[in-house]
Amino acid sequence: MSESSQMELMLPKGMRDLDPPDKILQLRVLDAIRGIFESYGYLPLETPLVERMDVLKAKFAAGEGTDVSQEIFQVTDQGERELGLRFDMTVPLARYVAMNPTIKLPFKRYVMGKVFRDGPIKLGRYREFWQADADIIGAPGALADAEGVFMARDLFTALDLDVTILMSSRELLRELMDALDIEESLRGKTIIALDKLKKIGKDGVIAEMKKTGVSFEQAERLMSMTDLEGSNEDRLQSLEKILSDSKGCARIREILEILKEVPNLVFDPTLARGLEYYTGFFFEVVLNSSQISSSLVGTGRYDKMIGQFLGGKQEFAAVGISFGVSVICDALREKGEGKTRSLTRVFVVPVSRNERAYALQIAQQLRGEGINTDLDMLERGIGKNFAYADTLGIPFVVVVGDDEMTGGMCSVKNMMTGDQKKLPIEELITLVK
Amino acid sequence: MSESSQMELMLPKGMRDLDPPDKILQLRVLDAIRGIFESYGYLPLETPLVERMDVLKAKFAAGEGTDVSQEIFQVTDQGERELGLRFDMTVPLARYVAMNPTIKLPFKRYVMGKVFRDGPIKLGRYREFWQADADIIGAPGALADAEGVFMARDLFTALDLDVTILMSSRELLRELMDALDIEESLRGKTIIALDKLKKIGKDGVIAEMKKTGVSFEQAERLMSMTDLEGSNEDRLQSLEKILSDSKGCARIREILEILKEVPNLVFDPTLARGLEYYTGFFFEVVLNSSQISSSLVGTGRYDKMIGQFLGGKQEFAAVGISFGVSVICDALREKGEGKTRSLTRVFVVPVSRNERAYALQIAQQLRGEGINTDLDMLERGIGKNFAYADTLGIPFVVVVGDDEMTGGMCSVKNMMTGDQKKLPIEELITLVK
Repeated sequence: MSESSQMELMLPKGMRDLDPPDKILQLRVLDAIRGIFESYGYLPLETPLVERMDVLKAKFAAGEGTDVSQEIFQVTDQGERELGLRFDMTVPLARYVAMNPTIKLPFKRYVMGKVFRDGPIKLGRYREFWQADADIIGAPGALADAEGVFMARDLFTALDLDVTILMSSRELLRELMDALDIEESLRGKTIIALDKLKKIGKDGVIAEMKKTGVSFEQAERLMSMTDLEGSNEDRLQSLEKILSDSKGCARIREILEILKEVPNLVFDPTLARGLEYYTGFFFEVVLNSSQISSSLVGTGRYDKMIGQFLGGKQEFAAVGISFGVSVICDALREKGEGKTRSLTRVFVVPVSRNERAYALQIAQQLRGEGINTDLDMLERGIGKNFAYADTLGIPFVVVVGDDEMTGGMCSVKNMMTGDQKKLPIEELITLVK
Repeated sequence: MSESSQMELMLPKGMRDLDPPDKILQLRVLDAIRGIFESYGYLPLETPLVERMDVLKAKFAAGEGTDVSQEIFQVTDQGERELGLRFDMTVPLARYVAMNPTIKLPFKRYVMGKVFRDGPIKLGRYREFWQADADIIGAPGALADAEGVFMARDLFTALDLDVTILMSSRELLRELMDALDIEESLRGKTIIALDKLKKIGKDGVIAEMKKTGVSFEQAERLMSMTDLEGSNEDRLQSLEKILSDSKGCARIREILEILKEVPNLVFDPTLARGLEYYTGFFFEVVLNSSQISSSLVGTGRYDKMIGQFLGGKQEFAAVGISFGVSVICDALREKGEGKTRSLTRVFVVPVSRNERAYALQIAQQLRGEGINTDLDMLERGIGKNFAYADTLGIPFVVVVGDDEMTGGMCSVKNMMTGDQKKLPIEELITLVK
């Protein structure tokens, strides 16, 4: 005990506690996401937070850049096994698919949980964070591509966030680079350069592309082919003129047709998305008129990754959406939400020990009606109880003294308006509901 | 990629995946627990799964036996910091209380998440498992003791599990050991011996107590004082006769009075509970007529632990309840539950590509009505779609062909009864709801 008195109690670097107001907001977001995933037919699947290190590292052999493999937290057990904390939800999904070969396809699963990255700490970026993913394995078609957009639309409508959905396709970029004879070995870096358009502008992108080995002419033509004016239909027609019999354009046309009811949907061929393993359609969601520039979702089709991860013998069509839980919470806080300190609706205060049983009976009756209710446990004075309820932002305080108890009544104060009245329990229930 | 083809994909030892049917059941349990915690006024708090090793180990200086300290999974980051995975929810709570000294008391918080113990693997025991805890900090009274019992009663009523709630008090045991002049240094082991009564019987317990250094007479008298016949009131009166002016008895009387409406509540003074840090009231919940003998909750008052953990300068009254999520799921499975393979209610099948947009429109309309709906994404034959829906246990399949589309209708098959009919979408919604 003397040691613990010397110890400074600290959080691990890059990790944080979520205080009740932050956790209440996050639960609202997680509940909304889960409701949408379930409404589209996704099944919940849970895998451990700890995986074997060889499993975690296999992903990087399968196409993702090497940067994340440096960011795996190492875990050791008493058997000195090499384990690690998961850094995404895709590796565990691929392992699960491999270990369950009789699974029925299409397999639609969702998962909501924490992932860990031992990376540099930036503002608003933590080493332990939530991810909420839904993926479809075994559906190569446009309906599967489009489903993520519908779910994003539904979520941001439900949360009342004003967003734009930007979409494009890796297949299309590949076709454009084919048309320009850009060498296979230069394409990864060319895509990464294009992905920086919003940050560094057109000339910056062209300069960066040249550094990768692409000619000035190739870079300039790739920019003029992708940085297009007009409506989604205008842009698509421009590309269809350049690329004859383009599968990429045909798929975009099909997806736009499926999504025709979705507002604020922009086909933007300059959209590149850094991750190497995307193979087809992808989209991102950005806030309109906000200080927050990060995308609220990360999403795309990755038809090769799982198959390669599993040894390359079989291909698994795959498309997924990953909601950025933290950034969505940040967006809601920017709008002034996230200040709810308690979910409790009523706080019951007995004037003395005499009324304790009666106060408890009222609390239990309210709980039975689905009303979150707390009560004084310290036998404190009424003033202290009002102050406590006020600190937590509980909207109703019920006081019961001898008078109230005898008449089967209670006195309620509305903490917002200051209104007070004495009424029977049944009327209290109606009032609070 | 060639390496990954050689690799066998495995789970870490002692960890498991929860397939959709198991996860669906577990989510039902977690949702029920969360609803009850919120209805009693507990606030959600989230702390990281990773804590500093010095914080995790401080608990053992503060009174818990040393066995669990051997079971912490070690985590290392790139900065070679000594970290570990949390093994319970109490240490993070104590750290949070220490780091937030302005917190308003009583502080009622709940947490639901995973904890990790690198311990021996037994049947049904895993190294990564869920815990759902609610604790009250700063409320020393009987109402706070009793609240966990109400919550357990509410949960097991909601889940329709037939249980007995066994309660006693560490304070009472301490008073009995005072009366018998049992030395302080022998008490921990005496309690552990008493805790084995159901497993090894009265004679076994007495033999075990003797081994710890207690005299035969002390052991026999402790057994006869605690192993009592009759009603809760009879037992309490027996103890009140032995212990004059007993605070332990007075508290039990107060708690029994608060809990008088709770059925199947048994005051059992032989109940000991192994953990050393309990200071007062505790209870456990066991299933009636079940193969499962484990308690469904672990709970108790621990008024010293947080204060000692924080350096011993201040005392924090504390009482908590921890629901055993896995064992509750096992209890439901024993009753035949846990077989739901999908939460989807309707599966929509377009006969050809022509009806795809119409099928999607129906799916979106159903989702808008709160009905979980999936649809064919593979343009497979109708037979294959029926087989797929059947595998997942989806209760309704809707087929739309040219006929249905022209008339604004759909054909629905009830997969349980085999009934088929053609009807307008509005009637489909009513039927499914």
